[in-house]
Amino acid sequence: MAASALCASCRQLGPCSALTEGNSSREMVSCLDLGSLSNPGFFNYGVETHEAYKKRSLSSDIIEEQKKLQEADLVIFQFPLYWFSVPAVLKGWMDRVLCQGFAFDFPGSYDDGLLKGKLAILSLTTAGTASMYSKTGVNGDFRYFLWPLQHGTLHFCGFKVLAPQISFGPEMASEEERKKMVASWAQRLKTLWEEEPIHCSPPWYFGQ
Amino acid sequence: MAASALCASCRQLGPCSALTEGNSSREMVSCLDLGSLSNPGFFNYGVETHEAYKKRSLSSDIIEEQKKLQEADLVIFQFPLYWFSVPAVLKGWMDRVLCQGFAFDFPGSYDDGLLKGKLAILSLTTAGTASMYSKTGVNGDFRYFLWPLQHGTLHFCGFKVLAPQISFGPEMASEEERKKMVASWAQRLKTLWEEEPIHCSPPWYFGQ
Repeated sequence: MAASALCASCRQLGPCSALTEGNSSREMVSCLDLGSLSNPGFFNYGVETHEAYKKRSLSSDIIEEQKKLQEADLVIFQFPLYWFSVPAVLKGWMDRVLCQGFAFDFPGSYDDGLLKGKLAILSLTTAGTASMYSKTGVNGDFRYFLWPLQHGTLHFCGFKVLAPQISFGPEMASEEERKKMVASWAQRLKTLWEEEPIHCSPPWYFGQ
Repeated sequence: MAASALCASCRQLGPCSALTEGNSSREMVSCLDLGSLSNPGFFNYGVETHEAYKKRSLSSDIIEEQKKLQEADLVIFQFPLYWFSVPAVLKGWMDRVLCQGFAFDFPGSYDDGLLKGKLAILSLTTAGTASMYSKTGVNGDFRYFLWPLQHGTLHFCGFKVLAPQISFGPEMASEEERKKMVASWAQRLKTLWEEEPIHCSPPWYFGQ
């Protein structure tokens, strides 16, 4: 069992104790995600998850999430922005659920990603204000931080991406402003299905 | 106890069971990171971690990581690129360890971040090749995905950032090419202290 050095659950060298212990709630990639390893002598998480997907031996929580995705026509990711990205618990969902064979393949990425035909939208809250997330603001344009999530993850898997719903700085906003943020999202949801996806390529993110 | 809705460990509404159960290994933000809550009626993770930091009641593993950071003059982040970003386990480290009061404050961000005077460098491996991570490649320029990590996280906390060390596609490279990658990193490490940091602002990332 040579997998332990890469196991985020047990994080120790030597036999991976996580493999033999019950653990029903995990958020990082781990030996626990897999059934028996196809190449225990040379552990490669990507290769092993691909194999486990084909053999249907991925852990049951991953399979359940994949089923939900498979059935969805539109996926809404709702989260608070942590360090210009998703919180770790959601990053772990992406790392674990969007595996090769299910979400992408080679060939089978970007416009040919295996989840093509589906829509996705990021709906997020920030700590900073809209002006802080502008081209001249300290945080730079909000589109800059969307690149890894919208292009590198969602587009890569074949999703068409709708323009994000960003509620800037609700923590510092007045109660009235917060209500407006919720109302505008509620209003948008009514006709979300009719929206045209963005053109997910560098000019949308970094253009003038 | 109104914290449970936001608890990434127990992830259930109602009293947070994670608070009363032993759990020695965690990678996401959680009620478990905190001592007693300063405002249990209105849970805000950022506020509570800031308060817990000041009261020295953060969980012991966070305090230990903060001590290591405090003592470091240079921090090397070594990771495989997962979805244009760090794996969830490292994202969780950022979410939990880099808390207000320790890594930043208001004021006390970017060039005035609380970790100023320290250097940081990302050393990462990718699945894709260098040409895939170029301006005209399918993944776009590698600098695009560095923005949230280098600017939004490291620079935000006051680090000066050295140019990244990227080993492109070691999995597909020959043994000889892989050895060259390791040798060039070893060579660079000898004089890393003498390098000038990058100018961490939009032109470095998105300039022509």
